[in-house]
Amino acid sequence: MKPSEYALNDPIAAIATALVPSALGIVRASGKGAIELAAKCFSRPERLIEAEGNTLVHGWVLGPEAEGSRERVDEVMVAVYRAPKSFTGEDSVEIIGHGGTATVLAVYRALVASGFRAAERGEFTFRAFANGKTDLARSEAIREIVDAKTDLARGRAADRLSGSLSREIASIKNAFVAALAAIEVEIEYPEDEETTAGAFDASAIGSAIDGLSRLESAWAAGRLYRDGARIVLAGKTNAGKSSLFNALLKEDRAIVSDVHGTTRDWIESTADFAGIPVRLYDTAGLRAAEDAIEAEGVERSKELVSLADLTLYVVDGAEGLSPDDERFLSRGDLSAPTILVWNKADREGTLPIPNAGESLRFARAVALSAKRAMGLGALVEACAEILLGDRGRASGRRETAPGTERQRDAIASALASARHARDAARDGFPMDAVAQDLEEAISFLGEITGEVTSADILDAVFSGFCVGK
Amino acid sequence: MKPSEYALNDPIAAIATALVPSALGIVRASGKGAIELAAKCFSRPERLIEAEGNTLVHGWVLGPEAEGSRERVDEVMVAVYRAPKSFTGEDSVEIIGHGGTATVLAVYRALVASGFRAAERGEFTFRAFANGKTDLARSEAIREIVDAKTDLARGRAADRLSGSLSREIASIKNAFVAALAAIEVEIEYPEDEETTAGAFDASAIGSAIDGLSRLESAWAAGRLYRDGARIVLAGKTNAGKSSLFNALLKEDRAIVSDVHGTTRDWIESTADFAGIPVRLYDTAGLRAAEDAIEAEGVERSKELVSLADLTLYVVDGAEGLSPDDERFLSRGDLSAPTILVWNKADREGTLPIPNAGESLRFARAVALSAKRAMGLGALVEACAEILLGDRGRASGRRETAPGTERQRDAIASALASARHARDAARDGFPMDAVAQDLEEAISFLGEITGEVTSADILDAVFSGFCVGK
Repeated sequence: MKPSEYALNDPIAAIATALVPSALGIVRASGKGAIELAAKCFSRPERLIEAEGNTLVHGWVLGPEAEGSRERVDEVMVAVYRAPKSFTGEDSVEIIGHGGTATVLAVYRALVASGFRAAERGEFTFRAFANGKTDLARSEAIREIVDAKTDLARGRAADRLSGSLSREIASIKNAFVAALAAIEVEIEYPEDEETTAGAFDASAIGSAIDGLSRLESAWAAGRLYRDGARIVLAGKTNAGKSSLFNALLKEDRAIVSDVHGTTRDWIESTADFAGIPVRLYDTAGLRAAEDAIEAEGVERSKELVSLADLTLYVVDGAEGLSPDDERFLSRGDLSAPTILVWNKADREGTLPIPNAGESLRFARAVALSAKRAMGLGALVEACAEILLGDRGRASGRRETAPGTERQRDAIASALASARHARDAARDGFPMDAVAQDLEEAISFLGEITGEVTSADILDAVFSGFCVGK
Repeated sequence: MKPSEYALNDPIAAIATALVPSALGIVRASGKGAIELAAKCFSRPERLIEAEGNTLVHGWVLGPEAEGSRERVDEVMVAVYRAPKSFTGEDSVEIIGHGGTATVLAVYRALVASGFRAAERGEFTFRAFANGKTDLARSEAIREIVDAKTDLARGRAADRLSGSLSREIASIKNAFVAALAAIEVEIEYPEDEETTAGAFDASAIGSAIDGLSRLESAWAAGRLYRDGARIVLAGKTNAGKSSLFNALLKEDRAIVSDVHGTTRDWIESTADFAGIPVRLYDTAGLRAAEDAIEAEGVERSKELVSLADLTLYVVDGAEGLSPDDERFLSRGDLSAPTILVWNKADREGTLPIPNAGESLRFARAVALSAKRAMGLGALVEACAEILLGDRGRASGRRETAPGTERQRDAIASALASARHARDAARDGFPMDAVAQDLEEAISFLGEITGEVTSADILDAVFSGFCVGK
């Protein structure tokens, strides 16, 4: 079902935690009569029905009656929320039970047997929006915060969840609304000198345009923090690629999961590079393949390199750039910016690192020792700087930014309309043409927070959610 | 740290839900001053400190102060529990936030920054036990319920969590205690005919022994429901093994996850066979390998077959048992009971299914059509019956049973002591010898619920827990 067609108020239920064995699990439910309905499968129904909002009730979830008795499903705490003081704005419960897969499923089934229907994707958040508990940009931030892969991405999403973007959009929109009001006064009373207080002020539009423009350019860094980048390690087999791979992962053990490529030609893992979620690939050696089997591995490595956002080309600093390296580098497989990693730099007899500037082949050159974990910080910083590019790290970190393509597109459209309005005013076009442009800009900004909605917008926002959100 | 050395009361925190992106996540904390400590990283500290037990407080988790401000980590509901009305019996909080990996980690780090230490495995449950909120058998049931792979296993664990085993053990123990008291009266006043009311009654011991004996034999079925069984599909490549594999998985889509063997010689998946969690393996064809590469796959398949609890030998019913089948079956690789699956039985011209009874090779023979999903239920029933064996399904389903090896061992020891007491009484041994045996039996039963504990017992129970439980 499309989110724009979601019913409101009828009682829905969903599993809200991952179906993985863990200490605790949550099944949530919301809608008209949700508390009374949940009481049907609860060992202390009256206690639940009489519970005040924002309280917890201890008891057992019960299965349907069979052979005169009801099975005890799980011992739980039920969090009771009463409309309108709940996430959805409706009567709601969160059943906190044991986190076993079978247990969470059984609690969910007990709710469904009591009359709840299975919630659709994002249906809880949709109701929160429909009931005025949140706006669209903050709804999207909920999804962002769930998907955030690094603490920085989490922090940027949390800012939007707390309304940072919504407030900035509102302030820009207010500037346009004020300008529009001034224009309408001018149109209405063109001769009235007394109304200069409400006169159209192009400079106010100008600073609003600057604000939109800042938001638009903040998007690129935001997207990088959200979606991350692929970094591929390339180089000859004995250059120390695997040592570097392991050393980089060890630097950040907070969120690391290993995925072995089914082809066994590469290993993939995730790491946090100064807040940028990075997928790191250790490829098979990139030397010219001698036999057919290895050739296939090298082909796949080349494919990975071609998809990379950044390549780390690892060289044994004691050997320097060998003819093999030169041959590979000259083949032009490295389409992404490449950092020359001068490995084993702690050893005596290491050759001097080539100056990256001398060669257009490398964006940067970093000397380090993967084995001794020396110089890794500098490499991570260099990666982040190159990936962020012009956006710069300092500005990219915590400035307000759009969090989704949808928000970015609406900002871009509003910006275009606003610029058009400014130019029209400057060039002496009729004021009602300027007014029309401003109205358009206001409408685009309204789409971001959801004051202006359409079925398409609602579908785009909520269909990407998981069930239970 | 060993569980028996766990400190009590100091504030501990742990992530209680799986670190997988999901709608909601929980970080829990407990200990003396836990609510005040949690308030240190909460946007409405007074509100939290003043909150009554079993209530929920809305707000934001805040990061440590940096550059004069504190980062908003996540918008959460905090469930407040006040001693002794909490799971641990201590002041506790459960912070219910968004289920993103980075978000849950950040909330946890905020708690640690506020002064909580990381909880050890099972430390919350250990405190619940130490504070008299639960007994040892029920503590173990918490772990069982989290690990339960089928709804039946979940139900059996829930019964133990609700105290079914503890009550049965207590009732048996009471019989021994009464018998012991009677013996002590006899020893104290050997000549006193007035004390016949408290006379030692061997029949009461007899029925307690029957109860223990029932519990002991219920263990085997319980273990099967808990740990499950391996079922391997074998047979020639064109017999329809993969169709059967997929059809069996389709029957139960509740808990299914596919794992592809890294060797690509077999596929593994989990399914629920009448409450028994089954690991189902689809192997490479078992025909005599023609070349070296295939030979390795066949070797691995044979290894799997040798580890199976049950083998399904699949034959194309239109072809019947071929010389290839006969050769494989006669090699004796199939050490587990084997069901002959007469596939494609819906087709015209299918040969009559051989009578399983005629051949010792097969425990059962089932005709079905994997492609049309006909006869699958009968196969699943046959598998469950063979796996449960003498234990029988009806009795195995919901009778009270021990849930762990530890409980089973204590029951077996108590049973041995009780039988010894009964025999000693029957054979006219001195009553103080009988009394000593009964005391032993009582002590073993006390180990199950934890009235009798030792460091070893506590370590055995709690070290198998996950962190957060």
